[in-house]
Amino acid sequence: MKTRITELLNIEHPIIQGGMHYVGYAELAAAVSNAGGLGIITALTQQSPSDLSEEISRCKDMTNKPFGVNLTILPTFKDPDYPGYIKAIIEGGVPVVETAGRNPQEVLPYLHEAGIKVIHKCTSIRHSLKAKSIGCDAVSVDGFECGGHPGEDDIPNMILLPRAADELEIPFVASGGMADARSLVGSLAMGADGMNMGTRFMATKEAPIHEKVKQAILEATELDTRLIMRPLRNTERVLTNVAVERLLEKERELGAELNIDDISEEVMGVYPRVMIDGDMDAGAWSCGIVAGLINDIPSCEELINRIMAEAESLIKDRLTGIVME
Amino acid sequence: MKTRITELLNIEHPIIQGGMHYVGYAELAAAVSNAGGLGIITALTQQSPSDLSEEISRCKDMTNKPFGVNLTILPTFKDPDYPGYIKAIIEGGVPVVETAGRNPQEVLPYLHEAGIKVIHKCTSIRHSLKAKSIGCDAVSVDGFECGGHPGEDDIPNMILLPRAADELEIPFVASGGMADARSLVGSLAMGADGMNMGTRFMATKEAPIHEKVKQAILEATELDTRLIMRPLRNTERVLTNVAVERLLEKERELGAELNIDDISEEVMGVYPRVMIDGDMDAGAWSCGIVAGLINDIPSCEELINRIMAEAESLIKDRLTGIVME
Repeated sequence: MKTRITELLNIEHPIIQGGMHYVGYAELAAAVSNAGGLGIITALTQQSPSDLSEEISRCKDMTNKPFGVNLTILPTFKDPDYPGYIKAIIEGGVPVVETAGRNPQEVLPYLHEAGIKVIHKCTSIRHSLKAKSIGCDAVSVDGFECGGHPGEDDIPNMILLPRAADELEIPFVASGGMADARSLVGSLAMGADGMNMGTRFMATKEAPIHEKVKQAILEATELDTRLIMRPLRNTERVLTNVAVERLLEKERELGAELNIDDISEEVMGVYPRVMIDGDMDAGAWSCGIVAGLINDIPSCEELINRIMAEAESLIKDRLTGIVME
Repeated sequence: MKTRITELLNIEHPIIQGGMHYVGYAELAAAVSNAGGLGIITALTQQSPSDLSEEISRCKDMTNKPFGVNLTILPTFKDPDYPGYIKAIIEGGVPVVETAGRNPQEVLPYLHEAGIKVIHKCTSIRHSLKAKSIGCDAVSVDGFECGGHPGEDDIPNMILLPRAADELEIPFVASGGMADARSLVGSLAMGADGMNMGTRFMATKEAPIHEKVKQAILEATELDTRLIMRPLRNTERVLTNVAVERLLEKERELGAELNIDDISEEVMGVYPRVMIDGDMDAGAWSCGIVAGLINDIPSCEELINRIMAEAESLIKDRLTGIVME
C-alpha cells in the first residue's frame, strides 16, 4: 500500500506503533520496523538522555529500517531534561518523532532542522489544526477509544476521522480502536492515511513486557476498560483491576475535591511494576477498548502481514464485490 | 450495492432511516423509501393505534416501496397499547419493524407470523446475541456516537462493529455516527451490512420538523452534544442548550440522589415543542455527535444518491488505488 504516510515516513505499510510507557523499547520498535511498519521507542521510559542514546543504538543494531521516538511533553512543572532527550534523538539519526501531550512548538525547530519528520498526537480537531499551523508534518488523530489519554471531548474516530479529513491538509493516521485489517480499511475509508496501534502491539511476541500483561489483554473484553482521573481533567483509559476500582471509588467519594495525591498509590510508579514484574494489581495502566478485539499473541511480522493481506482482500473482494452488484 | 440487508429488506441501497420521536412521520419515511433506502415511521409518536394506521396509510399514498415502523418498548409500568400498535402494523401490511428498548421477545411471534422482518436496536454485543437467539432477523448495532439512548457501556462503533461481525451470524447495520459515504464504506469495511442514520435524516428537506431544528443541527459541531440522565442509568445523548445545561447542573448537585422528577421540566413533553413549534430551549432532544459532520439540507434523494455515488468512488478509486500501489 502507498499512502501519504508511507511516502512521508518512507515505510512499506501504513502502520505505526504508538509510543507506550515501559513497552516501547528497542525490541518492539525494531520488530515493527523490520515488518515494514514504523516502530517507536518511548523516550521518557529511558531514565536519562544517555539511556535513550543507548536504546536508539540498540534498535539500530536490530533493524536497518526507519524507526521513530515518542517524546511526550508532560504538563508538569518539574520537566524531564527535554534538551538532552532531543539531542539524543538528533544525534541518533532518528528520522521520525511522535510528540504527545503539550504543544510541541518549542521543540519543532530543533527537530525540523535535523530533517526529522514530526507527527503530533491530537485528541481534537482544534489541536490537530494547531499542530498543522505550527508546522507538524502529520497528525495522529486519537479517538475516545484509545488507551492512555483520550482528552476530555469523548469524540470517537467514526466522527473524528472524517472531521479531520475535512479540515486538515496534512497526512494523518487513525489512533485508538485499531486492531486489524477492518480498522485499517475503515480508517482509510474515513480519510486517514494509515493507523497507529498501541494496545494491539503490546500483545505480540516481541513486546518486552511480562507475559501476564499480554494475557490480561487477551482476556479483556471491550467492557473492561475504565476512565480514571476525569475529575482532574487528565483522563486516562486503563484496564480495570482492584487498584483501578479502588481509585474510582475515591473519585466518587471526593468528587470535585479529588487531588492527585489522593490517588498517588494507584498511579505513581506503576508501570515498571506491571510491565516488568507482572504485578497486575499494582495500579492503573493504559489499555484501549480495542482489547476486546485482541485474541492472540503473534509476532509483529505475522500481525502486520496478516493485516495487510486481509486489508487487500477486504478492499478487492468484499468492498469491490458489494459495489459491483 | 447488494448486501445481506438490501436482500433481507428488499431495498436498493443499504441505508435505513432510524426511528425518531416526532420526526419519523410518513413524509420522511416515504421520501427515504422513494430514494431507495428504508424509511421508518415512529409508532409511539402517533397518539393511538388508529393514528398509526392512518399514518401508515398516508405513507402508502406517497410511496410504493417498502418502509418500516419503529416500535420502542419502553421501560415503564404504564405501557402504551402495544397490542393495538402491533395490530395496526400488521393490518397496514408493513414489511419491516425496527424494535428498540426492552427485549422484543413477546412481540416477535405476532410480527413473524405476519411475515414481518424484525431489526432490533442494540447497544451491546450481549444484547445483539440475545436478539439473534430470540429470532430477530437483523440487528442495528448502536454505538456510543448515537443520538438518543447509547446505553451505559460507551463502546464506539470502531470496536462494536468488528465485534458484532465476529459474534453475530445475522445481518447487522451500523447505527450512530453515520453521515456520509465515509461512514457507509467504513462500516461495510468493519463488517456491517449497511447503515442506519437518524440525525442526518433530520437535516433533509422532507423531514417534517421545524426549520430551526435543522439549522441547529447544521450549526452544531461534534462538541455540542451532552449525555444526560446517566445517574438514572437511562443515558440519552442530546444537543446542548440552556435547558440541558440546567439539567446537567441538577445532576451534578444531586448526584446519586437524582430522581426523574427533578428533571421532568427538561425532559417531559419536550418533543412536540421543539420539533413542531421550534422552541429550541424547551428541553432536551436527541442529537448524535454526527451533527459535527452535517453541513447542508438536501432532499433525501439527493442525500442518498450522493452517498451511493461517493461510496462507489471511495471503493473503486481511493481504496482500490491505495491497495494497487
